[in-house]
Amino acid sequence: MTNISLADPSGRPIRVGLDVGGTKIDAVAVDASGRIIGRLRRPTGWGDDAVVESIVLAVAALADENSFAISEVGSVGVGIPGLVDAGAGRVDHAVNLGVESLDLAARSEEVLGVQFRVENDVKAAALGAAALNGVAGSMAYLNLGTGVAAGIVIDGQIWRGSRGTAGEVGHLSVDPRGRLCGCGQHGCIETFCGGGALTKAWGRPGALPIKDLFDAADAGDPLALSLRNDLYHGAAAAVRALVLSADVETVVIGGGLTALGERLENGVRAALRAGAEASPFMRSLRLDERIELLPAGSPAAAFGAALVGASITEKEIVSHG
Amino acid sequence: MTNISLADPSGRPIRVGLDVGGTKIDAVAVDASGRIIGRLRRPTGWGDDAVVESIVLAVAALADENSFAISEVGSVGVGIPGLVDAGAGRVDHAVNLGVESLDLAARSEEVLGVQFRVENDVKAAALGAAALNGVAGSMAYLNLGTGVAAGIVIDGQIWRGSRGTAGEVGHLSVDPRGRLCGCGQHGCIETFCGGGALTKAWGRPGALPIKDLFDAADAGDPLALSLRNDLYHGAAAAVRALVLSADVETVVIGGGLTALGERLENGVRAALRAGAEASPFMRSLRLDERIELLPAGSPAAAFGAALVGASITEKEIVSHG
Repeated sequence: MTNISLADPSGRPIRVGLDVGGTKIDAVAVDASGRIIGRLRRPTGWGDDAVVESIVLAVAALADENSFAISEVGSVGVGIPGLVDAGAGRVDHAVNLGVESLDLAARSEEVLGVQFRVENDVKAAALGAAALNGVAGSMAYLNLGTGVAAGIVIDGQIWRGSRGTAGEVGHLSVDPRGRLCGCGQHGCIETFCGGGALTKAWGRPGALPIKDLFDAADAGDPLALSLRNDLYHGAAAAVRALVLSADVETVVIGGGLTALGERLENGVRAALRAGAEASPFMRSLRLDERIELLPAGSPAAAFGAALVGASITEKEIVSHG
Repeated sequence: MTNISLADPSGRPIRVGLDVGGTKIDAVAVDASGRIIGRLRRPTGWGDDAVVESIVLAVAALADENSFAISEVGSVGVGIPGLVDAGAGRVDHAVNLGVESLDLAARSEEVLGVQFRVENDVKAAALGAAALNGVAGSMAYLNLGTGVAAGIVIDGQIWRGSRGTAGEVGHLSVDPRGRLCGCGQHGCIETFCGGGALTKAWGRPGALPIKDLFDAADAGDPLALSLRNDLYHGAAAAVRALVLSADVETVVIGGGLTALGERLENGVRAALRAGAEASPFMRSLRLDERIELLPAGSPAAAFGAALVGASITEKEIVSHG
């Protein structure tokens, strides 16, 4: 399933993985064979102290609910949005969590006495998606959530690139006359298929604005039809950018918008086919056959975080005492 | 300079590299220390037999002019446009050479009795540019010629991706209302900064249409100004696509359009700066500082082909007898 060993040289059999989102933490406990033996969701705190506390409480609750001791936990991996320095275990600019700069690993380790490892949430999810979907070779994980970003996994390893911007296709502009992006450019892929940008462009209140938008499109609403088309078009552009630059074999789509299920999958496939219709070169790439959708509620992100934690080397464990 | 050894286990000290273009072959001879000891250009033939003949004659002329014997040549590497099967030494769909499918390595080896290795011309040039420019880590070589394509080199190795489309950013669309591309899509990066597309859009006869276009832009011609701006804009889009997906550290620009020299370099830098002006995220990437231009007439492509040839392993040499 994965080429990252979950065996722990310190003899602690449980790996914990946390996907820390803007509103909730998704936590899984994984045994040495790679099986998920427990899972729970808890709210995320706001600001440095509350984020650390909610992470610590999530690990404790997971242990309690699944009858294992913290002393049996070999590592905790945390996937978190923002700019992550994996080596230092620090996260910067996690604006959705009210965090400017936080020594997350050190502070959490201090409380729980367990090794922590921190990774960008999309990169961790990419690793988890590759493992859960059994993707060998090269894969991009395209996260369609509030924002849009991708992580690239090659032969079971996160592809880091030179400065950590690998897979940042959300901020490639594909239309100079497109909507203004939060990043300051116009027509970024994220303005077409990011949940935040679409919600803003839709502009009608509702608990599930993108679902409302899809329902309105089904009912023939012109704005909804246009925005739904933008979503398909933007996701297809992201897939093309990932294949025509990094040349990944497969693109796995995840993130909050996968709650749309088949409506999303079929729409993106159709957009890829339509975009290739006039181009023998693009047709030859068969992109519509190279995408997969994660099931809504997939534990890929938290599972990937557990894999990140499990990748702590023996040397690091020794050097940390 | 490069981590590919030029030492030859068979004891033949000379490596030859050929960059086979639509009109001419650029050939270099390289000694075991990686120094270019000879270089010449010859016309390329049209069609299978003539292409093989022009390649064989280029090697023979290079030996003759530089006073070495064919028996001293350890390998010949050939960079050639088209779909290359490097393992089989075959090239398909080299339309500019009148070649549909040619067993180039086998046919050339038969005549000269020297090991041949074949590689896509842009990938070979990428390897040569990385070596000649002393780029360690990750680099993309963006070829601005008649068409537009990039090759990616990571730690001195050509990055192949899963299906050979790594770096094919020329056919990413960045404007849905853009010009029709030869590939069938609209607004491809190649329609903005490919020499062929610009020459067609310029539409005025001349031996050096892009130079004419630049001179006309300097003189205030509105169409020329608009097309020159397209060139800068397209090249900047290609740089962004390479960094925001594969996250290469450096983009080296080569190809025929580098004859424009500083006018090209300054324009692309300015377009990168202008594109980042409104975006703190893009500004933080400092893309304008991460591009380099190959000097016009650089032997990078032929030198890279020599490196490709030199990468023939001892095992292959034995298995080929």
